[in-house]
Amino acid sequence: MCAVVGVYNIEDASKIAYYSLFAMQHRGQEASGISSSNGHKIYTIKDRGLVSQIFDENILKKLTGKMAIGHNRYSTAGEDSILDAQPVFARYDLGEMAVVHNGNLTNNKEIRDELIESGAIFQSSMDTENLIHLIARCTKERLKDRIIDAIDKVKGAYSFIFLSRTKMFVMRDRYGFRPLSIAKLADGYVVASETCAFDLIGATFIRDVEPGEMLIFEDGNFETIQIYKSEPKKCIFEYVYFARPDSSVFGQSTYELRKEMGRVLARESTIDADLVIPVPDSGIAAALGYSEESKIPFELGIIRNHYVGRTFIEPTQAIRDIKVKMKLSPIKDLISGKKVVVIDDSIVRGTTSKKIVQMLKDAGAKEVHMKISSPPTSYPCFYGIDTPTKEELISNKYTLEEIREFIGADTLEYISLNGLLKSAGEQKSFCTTCFDGKYFV
Amino acid sequence: MCAVVGVYNIEDASKIAYYSLFAMQHRGQEASGISSSNGHKIYTIKDRGLVSQIFDENILKKLTGKMAIGHNRYSTAGEDSILDAQPVFARYDLGEMAVVHNGNLTNNKEIRDELIESGAIFQSSMDTENLIHLIARCTKERLKDRIIDAIDKVKGAYSFIFLSRTKMFVMRDRYGFRPLSIAKLADGYVVASETCAFDLIGATFIRDVEPGEMLIFEDGNFETIQIYKSEPKKCIFEYVYFARPDSSVFGQSTYELRKEMGRVLARESTIDADLVIPVPDSGIAAALGYSEESKIPFELGIIRNHYVGRTFIEPTQAIRDIKVKMKLSPIKDLISGKKVVVIDDSIVRGTTSKKIVQMLKDAGAKEVHMKISSPPTSYPCFYGIDTPTKEELISNKYTLEEIREFIGADTLEYISLNGLLKSAGEQKSFCTTCFDGKYFV
Amino acid sequence: MCAVVGVYNIEDASKIAYYSLFAMQHRGQEASGISSSNGHKIYTIKDRGLVSQIFDENILKKLTGKMAIGHNRYSTAGEDSILDAQPVFARYDLGEMAVVHNGNLTNNKEIRDELIESGAIFQSSMDTENLIHLIARCTKERLKDRIIDAIDKVKGAYSFIFLSRTKMFVMRDRYGFRPLSIAKLADGYVVASETCAFDLIGATFIRDVEPGEMLIFEDGNFETIQIYKSEPKKCIFEYVYFARPDSSVFGQSTYELRKEMGRVLARESTIDADLVIPVPDSGIAAALGYSEESKIPFELGIIRNHYVGRTFIEPTQAIRDIKVKMKLSPIKDLISGKKVVVIDDSIVRGTTSKKIVQMLKDAGAKEVHMKISSPPTSYPCFYGIDTPTKEELISNKYTLEEIREFIGADTLEYISLNGLLKSAGEQKSFCTTCFDGKYFV
Amino acid sequence: MCAVVGVYNIEDASKIAYYSLFAMQHRGQEASGISSSNGHKIYTIKDRGLVSQIFDENILKKLTGKMAIGHNRYSTAGEDSILDAQPVFARYDLGEMAVVHNGNLTNNKEIRDELIESGAIFQSSMDTENLIHLIARCTKERLKDRIIDAIDKVKGAYSFIFLSRTKMFVMRDRYGFRPLSIAKLADGYVVASETCAFDLIGATFIRDVEPGEMLIFEDGNFETIQIYKSEPKKCIFEYVYFARPDSSVFGQSTYELRKEMGRVLARESTIDADLVIPVPDSGIAAALGYSEESKIPFELGIIRNHYVGRTFIEPTQAIRDIKVKMKLSPIKDLISGKKVVVIDDSIVRGTTSKKIVQMLKDAGAKEVHMKISSPPTSYPCFYGIDTPTKEELISNKYTLEEIREFIGADTLEYISLNGLLKSAGEQKSFCTTCFDGKYFV
Repeated sequence: MCAVVGVYNIEDASKIAYYSLFAMQHRGQEASGISSSNGHKIYTIKDRGLVSQIFDENILKKLTGKMAIGHNRYSTAGEDSILDAQPVFARYDLGEMAVVHNGNLTNNKEIRDELIESGAIFQSSMDTENLIHLIARCTKERLKDRIIDAIDKVKGAYSFIFLSRTKMFVMRDRYGFRPLSIAKLADGYVVASETCAFDLIGATFIRDVEPGEMLIFEDGNFETIQIYKSEPKKCIFEYVYFARPDSSVFGQSTYELRKEMGRVLARESTIDADLVIPVPDSGIAAALGYSEESKIPFELGIIRNHYVGRTFIEPTQAIRDIKVKMKLSPIKDLISGKKVVVIDDSIVRGTTSKKIVQMLKDAGAKEVHMKISSPPTSYPCFYGIDTPTKEELISNKYTLEEIREFIGADTLEYISLNGLLKSAGEQKSFCTTCFDGKYFV
Repeated sequence: MCAVVGVYNIEDASKIAYYSLFAMQHRGQEASGISSSNGHKIYTIKDRGLVSQIFDENILKKLTGKMAIGHNRYSTAGEDSILDAQPVFARYDLGEMAVVHNGNLTNNKEIRDELIESGAIFQSSMDTENLIHLIARCTKERLKDRIIDAIDKVKGAYSFIFLSRTKMFVMRDRYGFRPLSIAKLADGYVVASETCAFDLIGATFIRDVEPGEMLIFEDGNFETIQIYKSEPKKCIFEYVYFARPDSSVFGQSTYELRKEMGRVLARESTIDADLVIPVPDSGIAAALGYSEESKIPFELGIIRNHYVGRTFIEPTQAIRDIKVKMKLSPIKDLISGKKVVVIDDSIVRGTTSKKIVQMLKDAGAKEVHMKISSPPTSYPCFYGIDTPTKEELISNKYTLEEIREFIGADTLEYISLNGLLKSAGEQKSFCTTCFDGKYFV
Repeated sequence: MCAVVGVYNIEDASKIAYYSLFAMQHRGQEASGISSSNGHKIYTIKDRGLVSQIFDENILKKLTGKMAIGHNRYSTAGEDSILDAQPVFARYDLGEMAVVHNGNLTNNKEIRDELIESGAIFQSSMDTENLIHLIARCTKERLKDRIIDAIDKVKGAYSFIFLSRTKMFVMRDRYGFRPLSIAKLADGYVVASETCAFDLIGATFIRDVEPGEMLIFEDGNFETIQIYKSEPKKCIFEYVYFARPDSSVFGQSTYELRKEMGRVLARESTIDADLVIPVPDSGIAAALGYSEESKIPFELGIIRNHYVGRTFIEPTQAIRDIKVKMKLSPIKDLISGKKVVVIDDSIVRGTTSKKIVQMLKDAGAKEVHMKISSPPTSYPCFYGIDTPTKEELISNKYTLEEIREFIGADTLEYISLNGLLKSAGEQKSFCTTCFDGKYFV
Repeated sequence: MCAVVGVYNIEDASKIAYYSLFAMQHRGQEASGISSSNGHKIYTIKDRGLVSQIFDENILKKLTGKMAIGHNRYSTAGEDSILDAQPVFARYDLGEMAVVHNGNLTNNKEIRDELIESGAIFQSSMDTENLIHLIARCTKERLKDRIIDAIDKVKGAYSFIFLSRTKMFVMRDRYGFRPLSIAKLADGYVVASETCAFDLIGATFIRDVEPGEMLIFEDGNFETIQIYKSEPKKCIFEYVYFARPDSSVFGQSTYELRKEMGRVLARESTIDADLVIPVPDSGIAAALGYSEESKIPFELGIIRNHYVGRTFIEPTQAIRDIKVKMKLSPIKDLISGKKVVVIDDSIVRGTTSKKIVQMLKDAGAKEVHMKISSPPTSYPCFYGIDTPTKEELISNKYTLEEIREFIGADTLEYISLNGLLKSAGEQKSFCTTCFDGKYFV
């Protein structure tokens, strides 16, 4: 699902980008990269691994200048990851450019085929490369106009940040699928996928970049152009699962919304139980809301282990399946003999839920009631969330009862789509394609 | 504070030890080691680093046999850590032996001086080495008798596990400072510092090893000898801070006791506030108890970051102090404008508390009330907890009001010693030396 | 100076490429990469470091197919090396393609500017990228014809290997600057920069690829087209320094030629001395030839240390300059009191020679006579050898006597250009630009 | 076979020790360690791996003081290497002590059994530990007297260096099996196994430590005591193979002696051949001597590859046995059609020789005549050289003709024992046990 950051007019911009990427590490752990510009030349360093593994003081020193863009890449199957790390850098007729992208272009193939047809070459499988080609081939004189033209050709979800040697351009798609906000720091600005980046570096949140808005950073300041105007289709999964709870996303507190989902879930599916426990860490806020509404006591009944090994040691005969237990462990004294409501954010393939239910039953739970703070996700996302194929999504193939049976819970309830939207406040402005399959772009 | 494990009569014993140490990683991250015996020979592998960094499938294969002991070492200053890793292995007149030790011997220096006086050499600074010397120099014929003799010479806190080529001996000091329990797995037994180890490997908890009790594992079973009988002095800090919440320690649920401390704390120091938030992860259970008793809503208002870098990148001018914020971040939307009760387990030097208070104030908290679920720790522990010197303990040198002013909180309250003991149920059986300075052994 | 390899129609082609690159590691240690094709898809893996550091059994397994090309990159200053590793892979209108290149295009900038002018983007600073663009933009139907067209636009030194999903194309420039040979292995073929690769993998040398010749590997065999016919200008520095002594380069034994250079050098500059010693390993063969001709005994008077540290430890006050001595150490008993002839292949900046002379004097040499088996290199190479700038080349700025004084030798003699050419047998077919500055392409 | 170094009264002694160990890396690559003393406390750091992998600037900074001892450990089978790294450090009744040891004690087991009998414990399998015990148990007042007493109890080959907090003691066994020399540097002294260490650090060779001599470094100077006086039995294999050619061993130049062995070998086994080539690097000097005497031209016909991979990649079907060829490669143009004399220093198991002969035959050699510059080694060494068991030594089980047939050479000749001794000049002072099996201590 990735994270992007842009830093403009701040000393040691690459360090600001580093910290911002560090704060947004949860949005992508496969690869990271930063490009900086000192006004004359763009430098790019990118590699596989976590931000803190790739960069150190010496490496950041090479990324000079007061402008920088950065990217965290979410793990994806298939292609070699070094070639697919971002920023993508290129020399072209107006000089040098680097681009980062959070999202997914739905007409990637068409554009690529067309470009290839006319002699372009592609060195990676990233749709980000398309944009550079479209810009390079545009004959307009100013980069700004070229970006506008290029953007006009692509469809789908995108938060782009372009870095030239002297300017920075930010563009969010007309639906505003992915979050993108702007903040003030020292004499400059920082643009980032999530506001938790601002909190870490001490930048002051200004506002969200608007859907369809372009920001042009130049001469120490920025101007704005509203390129498109559409009904927004913001990704509600950012609230459900993806964003950090301390981030304010699409203008609202992620943590508060998750709590509200929990409350709605409690209203929709009351049950007689002894305690409410979250699957940590993602289910905590919703479980707090569920507890508040249902009056069933909240307990942190499952502990998350912070020490995770590099390589898995095959267990011995005496030990059964251990993988989930190495990450999550139940508090037996608490759970034993109790009717337990477990809150999780979603069920994808169902295998982890099955193991969690089993673990709780092994810990002595009398009943396990699984409550999910999102509706069944039956359709893959093509707007930037890395979901499995339709065939692998358990709710695409099985009924609620079948899923319940598979995971072994006594009851299983999902929040209703309506309930989810209600909890987010504005019912019309969200993308619900992964629930209803109505792809629209 | 360290962790120990002993595995007896189970196939691939070193793997069971590995998993047990993995579950107890929170008790020591500096170094780890395992010794195994196949009945004929003892193998030892130990190194600096986390359990999962030191061992892999191939390395564990070298540790053959159905018996194994293991150790996690807590970070300590000074000496080179490879030399100070455990198990300590030795060849001596009865053959081969390996020992692990959790605790601290208070007459370490006297014994060592005496041994050195009579020609012994010490290759490490670990008090564990003393025991082997005492055993080796004893002239009794049976190892069991020698261990009893040796143990009789040492004072302080200890949970020892001795491995010979064919037997395993377990000994807990008369006061039972450190926790130690025994469980059944397959045809054999597992002894471990914390019961969370049993839960991971699927072993069935039998009971705690008694203070002053010795267990002798031999011929597929174990016998027990009550060597000493004293009033126990169990370390209450295991409850306050050290043990994992899913462990049952000294026969009670850690998680439940921490909640009870929170309840007591709430009764002792009521305050008018909007929300109760824990310092994660250690303060969570106490905060839940505090909220339950005070009716002030519980919120997970501070998020803990799971991605921690190897090396710290010096921040730029534009960014102020950032170290604490890389680990902990507040949910601003939640905290802003609120009167906040923050629950932590203890204040050692006061510097972290100061940064947390500042962080919450920066996040807009109207008032910050710090509540600590242990009394002021004014005296260093010599019974196995790695505390700083008396001079570094803030509560040794400053009054409550001075500490409050230093950390910048609006109010500061510690639980009373009486309250803490009440929450643990049995008021007489705990060691309270770090609070009252009454060293007794 | 780089190495290239192409493998056609052999099972596990990527392994053959791996071993070939391993044998040619001396031609480039900065980065390596392999692309393979299984007939349907091209896979590429490349990274910084030595061949043996980048690839292992598992990684090679991902590079499936019976065709592969590979590259070793010589260390160059400046740009980030991951972006500049080869093979360069691209998708274009005819499908997929990967290219490796040994050499240097002298009209790189002109072509790049022209391509950029017409909308192309460049993601690296490698001239190799030009070729792919030229091919992708060509409108001819067959890749073969496009390669011929593209090649016709570039000038300079090149040994190219192109891999499509089903074919492999090899092209050596009209002057044949860099070596390139072809061999038979199992049912297929291997093309490599140096024949030492064939020896390692057990392939049977067929012949050199001719200057200006194109090879097209298709349907299990290869056809040949002589695209250009020129007077060859083979790089004589391959003989002097670069190639491995066990390689046959341009149809002659490198080792034998180096010995002949030593003989010629001896004839040109006789001296009264006690022994002849080489700077290991590059000067060994020439020193043997010098000894043979001059009758002065050959001795391996300087030992090369095989253990080289990662990081340099700053020496203490008690120790003087130590860097050269960590790599090379003189046999004092041999050298002390002797008149010594030292043979090296070239003097670039003069600093290493200065340290070697000093080291020999410190070892007690009565006289040190430096003999160089190449003429003074006064001009930078633009045909694929990584030389410093004109300003840094000591022989561009100083006279023979000044250089002698700088390095501190008693006498200093270079082989004459005529002598060098004579030793290579065919006087007219070599490039001598680095000696005479007559750039011709 | 190991290396030891001692540094006395020089600033940053640990750095001097570091460089000395670096120079002697060829004597042991498994583990390394350094102990230093600042007059008050001894610091020890040791680990597996090469000197340059274990130490860096920061680690050396921890080893403060003007005295240091160090050790390189040769790879040995069996025990865990961290436990068996040196220096061995101990606290004992006179304070602190660290010891390094090059050699092997032949009464190790007896002493150890006796010590264990009387209550000592052994934490490693190193005979070095014995010495510390003997010293610690001695009741004399001065460390010097204790060392003398302790030394008197052990038999075998040893070069010991003892470090106390204020003094350094050096002791070489009465036979002088292993080399040990002393040099002057700045205001202090350096003692090292090989003189190549002195050359690197720029120390001035004073003399060899005498067999049976003890050196006591104290008050800025050293005194000497001749503890034993015997007929020396110096290890001739130091000359044959182990020492670096630029070291002066037992007062003579290693390089010169190897050349002399070659001359003697040539006199003993003349043959009609076209060229003499060494197995690099160990056979080079002997081959030069052979060539000089026989008048058969010397050629460096086998090239040693400096790039060796960490992990071996299994070759494909198309490639045959490749392991030896990855390290050594023949110059085919030189060897093809020739009668070749190959010089190596010894044959242990015969498998490598077999592969070299095969490699040369594959390269077209008409005849391959193998000449060995040591007599058949039929007996394992118990004086510090790490030889295989008697069963694995090919010359213990097979006749010359059988060995020749096994390795596939046309002829095979070893130097005679008499010839070897003659080349070393003093016929009576060498240990020849590995040739004749006459163990004497």
